[in-house]
Amino acid sequence: MKHFTKEALLTAGTAYNKNFINCLSGYKSLNLIGSINEESSETNLAPFSQVFHIGANPPTVGILFRPHSVERHTLENILQNGNFTLNHVTESFYKEAHLSSARWERSEFEATGLKEEYLNNFIAPFVEKSPLKVACLLKDKITLAVNETVLIIGSIEEVWIKPQAVEEDGFISLDKLGTITVSGLDSYHIANKLARLTYAKPDKPVKEL
Amino acid sequence: MKHFTKEALLTAGTAYNKNFINCLSGYKSLNLIGSINEESSETNLAPFSQVFHIGANPPTVGILFRPHSVERHTLENILQNGNFTLNHVTESFYKEAHLSSARWERSEFEATGLKEEYLNNFIAPFVEKSPLKVACLLKDKITLAVNETVLIIGSIEEVWIKPQAVEEDGFISLDKLGTITVSGLDSYHIANKLARLTYAKPDKPVKEL
Repeated sequence: MKHFTKEALLTAGTAYNKNFINCLSGYKSLNLIGSINEESSETNLAPFSQVFHIGANPPTVGILFRPHSVERHTLENILQNGNFTLNHVTESFYKEAHLSSARWERSEFEATGLKEEYLNNFIAPFVEKSPLKVACLLKDKITLAVNETVLIIGSIEEVWIKPQAVEEDGFISLDKLGTITVSGLDSYHIANKLARLTYAKPDKPVKEL
Repeated sequence: MKHFTKEALLTAGTAYNKNFINCLSGYKSLNLIGSINEESSETNLAPFSQVFHIGANPPTVGILFRPHSVERHTLENILQNGNFTLNHVTESFYKEAHLSSARWERSEFEATGLKEEYLNNFIAPFVEKSPLKVACLLKDKITLAVNETVLIIGSIEEVWIKPQAVEEDGFISLDKLGTITVSGLDSYHIANKLARLTYAKPDKPVKEL
């Protein structure tokens, strides 16, 4: 095994340290966040790998924003009008999703060719091509003292999903959606299911569901 | 597309809603957290899918704990002595990792047969078999008002990793480590790399690295 101390990583250079530390937690979710500036009516789209589950009842999601980052417009729109969308990304448009992270001076929908869609009078735009779309409302904002990153807490209001991916017990097969996953800053991956496992109990063997 | 409202999900039953909402954010990281109760010297091991990147400088990680959950011992140990380890999980021991989530009355290392390892005088135990091990110290604890989940913020102090997985620019190839990813409560997946993409700039085509 190769051994790295914190000091060695910090002296290895900013880019090296950033790539390395970003990979340590493991695979990350990938969502395109759609938002809109209501004053100018300009829509915004940006990829996020820091969206995570907070709770099922009430259905709640968290997103971590860097303090000064390319995703600033997304954060400003959310704080301004309180609504945003999450959209899963598939292999067929992950390069467009990546391109939406550039510092465009116009809507990333227009710039990347990803078509926007409006559902059920929700204000923020969805990504038409996405197989799983979530309408969210802003619930809370917490600034983390450690490095000024901003944790946005959102409620999950509505979901649109390819029906064949929803199993009888509510489980969503991300394989059937074609959802991809990201590692580090720029690496994209498809995933293949090993198994679902039964609820673990002491001294009972683990079985596949 | 199938459409679900929040109300429909909450009336679909607790298990259905839990499975569904847990899957919405997408693929999640999987880490075994090793900790120790210093008074009794009992070690603890539990799988977590809520470990995420917070920042590279200082190297910082976040973990979300449910308020009343099977992972309570892990949280108590971390709050008691301030240290814990993160350990990636591979296909060769993901069933043991899952089994460590059961409510054992003894150390999950002993119960599951996953061997503990001590490195560089760090107090908390590592998982010997893991291809990526991180030593962390407690930095902060935030209780989220929305549902009383607890966000633990840790500093990354030391890393041990299979050397062939570290690329020249600091990127860690999770494929080469064999790291797996989880979705929902109980579904495990291996991932296959599509590509790393170059830093996105307006009006420049996205290229593979």
